[in-house]
Amino acid sequence: MENLDKDELNLGYREAGVDRDASNLAKFRISQVARSTFSPDVIGEIGGFGSLYKLQGFKSPVLVSHTDSVGTKIRIGASLGRYESLGLDIVHHCVNDIFTCGARPLFFLDYIAMGRLVPDRVASLIDGMAAACRTVGCSLIGGETAEMPGIYQDDDTELVGFVVGAVEQDKLIDGSNIVAGDVLLGLPSSGLHTNGFSLVRRIFETDRNPSNLYEEITELGCTLGEALLVPHRCYYPLLLPVVQHVKAMAHITGGGLLENVPRVLPNTVAAHFWENSWDIPQLFKLIQHRGNVSSAEMYRVFNMGIGMVLIVDSESVVSVQSLLSEVKVIGTIVESNDAEKVRIGVPR
Amino acid sequence: MENLDKDELNLGYREAGVDRDASNLAKFRISQVARSTFSPDVIGEIGGFGSLYKLQGFKSPVLVSHTDSVGTKIRIGASLGRYESLGLDIVHHCVNDIFTCGARPLFFLDYIAMGRLVPDRVASLIDGMAAACRTVGCSLIGGETAEMPGIYQDDDTELVGFVVGAVEQDKLIDGSNIVAGDVLLGLPSSGLHTNGFSLVRRIFETDRNPSNLYEEITELGCTLGEALLVPHRCYYPLLLPVVQHVKAMAHITGGGLLENVPRVLPNTVAAHFWENSWDIPQLFKLIQHRGNVSSAEMYRVFNMGIGMVLIVDSESVVSVQSLLSEVKVIGTIVESNDAEKVRIGVPR
Repeated sequence: MENLDKDELNLGYREAGVDRDASNLAKFRISQVARSTFSPDVIGEIGGFGSLYKLQGFKSPVLVSHTDSVGTKIRIGASLGRYESLGLDIVHHCVNDIFTCGARPLFFLDYIAMGRLVPDRVASLIDGMAAACRTVGCSLIGGETAEMPGIYQDDDTELVGFVVGAVEQDKLIDGSNIVAGDVLLGLPSSGLHTNGFSLVRRIFETDRNPSNLYEEITELGCTLGEALLVPHRCYYPLLLPVVQHVKAMAHITGGGLLENVPRVLPNTVAAHFWENSWDIPQLFKLIQHRGNVSSAEMYRVFNMGIGMVLIVDSESVVSVQSLLSEVKVIGTIVESNDAEKVRIGVPR
Repeated sequence: MENLDKDELNLGYREAGVDRDASNLAKFRISQVARSTFSPDVIGEIGGFGSLYKLQGFKSPVLVSHTDSVGTKIRIGASLGRYESLGLDIVHHCVNDIFTCGARPLFFLDYIAMGRLVPDRVASLIDGMAAACRTVGCSLIGGETAEMPGIYQDDDTELVGFVVGAVEQDKLIDGSNIVAGDVLLGLPSSGLHTNGFSLVRRIFETDRNPSNLYEEITELGCTLGEALLVPHRCYYPLLLPVVQHVKAMAHITGGGLLENVPRVLPNTVAAHFWENSWDIPQLFKLIQHRGNVSSAEMYRVFNMGIGMVLIVDSESVVSVQSLLSEVKVIGTIVESNDAEKVRIGVPR
C-alpha cells in the first residue's frame, strides 16, 4: 500500500452518508421475509448475484414482464409514517399489468432507494410486498436496496417493482379479436390506486401541510390520508375464473380510461363509455371540487372508480356476471378509424 | 358531471409538475430505439401492459434475474451533461451479474425517474441502454419513465435496470464444487464501474463544485470527470468462451472483493488474494490519497482494479489464460471455517 498523507481529510463511506451496517441488517430481514414467498421453483437464496427461478409446466411459454413504481403516493405514506400498504400497491400494480395479457405472476424483484437507509422502513415495505406476493403465489426472489444521499432527501423513498409472469402462447390475451358490438365491463377500483398523486399532493398541499392528511372528511367516512393510502386493488385472483371469456383487459393506471383502454384496441374500433353507468366515488368528486379540475383532466389523470376494464363479446356478458357479480356493463365497442379511441358520454 | 366551483384553484397535471406531452414524446422515441434491440423472440411492441418474450430453445431453463441502479454515478453524468454512457453502465452491470450464474441475457427493462421529464435526457439514457443491449443480444422490451416532482430535484435522475436471462439447469454455475487449491483469476475493471460514487462525490466535492470534474489530472491522462464516467465494463462476451472452465464468478460491485467474493464461496473455504499481484489503477490511488481513506475501506467500497473474479481449478488456469490473455492469477482458495472469508495479503 502507498503512504498516506495523514493531514488529509479522513473519510469513510459512513461519513459520506452510506451506512453499510444498516444496509446489511436490512438485507438480513429481507432475506427472512422473502423466503416466506418462495415457491418450490425458486433455486437458492436471496443474496446471490442473480435470482434463480426454474421455469416448468409450460409447453410454449411467453414471459410477460412489467416494471412500475408507486410514484409519489409514497409521500403520503411517508407523511403518515405508514409504508406497509405501499408494498401491496407495487405488487398489485405490477401483477394486474401482466395479467391483462393472461400471465400468472412467477416472481418479483424490488428496488428501494432512500437518502438515508432506515431498516424499519425497508422492513415495512418488504412485509407488504411479501404479503401481496404470498396471496398471488408470486415469489419475491430478489431486489436492491440503495442508499443515495444527495439524490434523495433523508425522508424520501423510491419504490420500484419488477414482475415476471408466464402464459402459454395460445392463451395470450392481446385484444386482436375485438370487434364492434363487444361490451365494456368495468370493475371498481379501491381508490386512487397509484396514480394522480402529484396532482393530489398539490391540491391538498400535503407536502407543506401534512396535517391536512388527518382531516376527517364526512363524505369519505375517514381521514383524507386514510382514503389516499387505500391499497391498489389486485384483480388477478378475482379475474382468474373469468379469463377464458375475455378478449382483452385494460388496467386503468396513469392516463385513466382515455389512455389505457386504447392500448388494447385494434385500429378499427373505439371504446364508448356510458357516463353515469357507474358511480364516481366520493374521493374523485372531492378532488375535482377542491382543485377545480376539469372533467376531461380528471378522466385523464385518475381511474374515476374503474380499476380494470374487460372487453368481452356480448354473449359472454351473462357468464362473466354470473361468475363475478360486481362487474358492470359500462360501454361498448364501436367501429371507428378516428384518432379519438375513447369517448365518455351518453349512450347512443 | 357535478357542478364545479370556479372560484377554486384551477389545477391540471402540468401545473402540478407533470408534463404528459413531454412524457408521450419520450415514449415515442423510446419505442423507436428499443425496437432496434428486439430479437425474433420478442412479441408485439413497446407500450402494452406487459412486455412479451417467447422463451424457446431451452430444455430445462432456469430464469436468472437481477435489478440494480447506477447509484449516484448519475450525478457525475448530470454535472457533465453526459448521460449516454450511464445507459451502458446499467445494462453492463446487470448483465455481468446474471452471467456469474452462467445465464445469457434475454431481455431488459428500465425505470427512469426525474423531477422534471427532459426528453433529450431520456433519449440519451435509452440510446446507451439500447447500444449495450444490441451488443450482448439482449432485447430492451419495456420500462417506465416517471416524472416525480417533489421527490427528485429538476436535475436529478434515477436509473434502474432489470434483466432476465436463462441458463440450462445443468449448466448453472453456483460455486458449490469450489475446493481448497482452486485458483482466483482476476479481470481488470475499466474504472470505478458503478460503485463508490457517494464517497467520491464527497472527497472531490463534485456536488458543490462541479468544476472540479474538469480538472486535468496528470497521472490519469484525462480530466477527473472523464475518469469517473468511464462505463462499467461488460464481461459477458469476453467470458463466454471460457465459461465451461469456470467453477464460479464474482462480479466486484459495491462491497468490493471483501463482500462480493464470499457470495459464491462454500462455507468450508476462504479466498486469499495476493497483494501486489495486480496493479491498483491510478484512479483508486488518487481517491485514497485525496480522501485519506484507509486501505481496508478502499477494498470495501471499490473494485480496486478487479471487476470480475473467476474461480477455476488449478489445471484449468492455462486453458483460460490461452483463451483470455488478460486474466491474471491473483490468489488462491484455502480451507477455512472462519467468519473472515476474504483476506488480502502476502502469499504464503
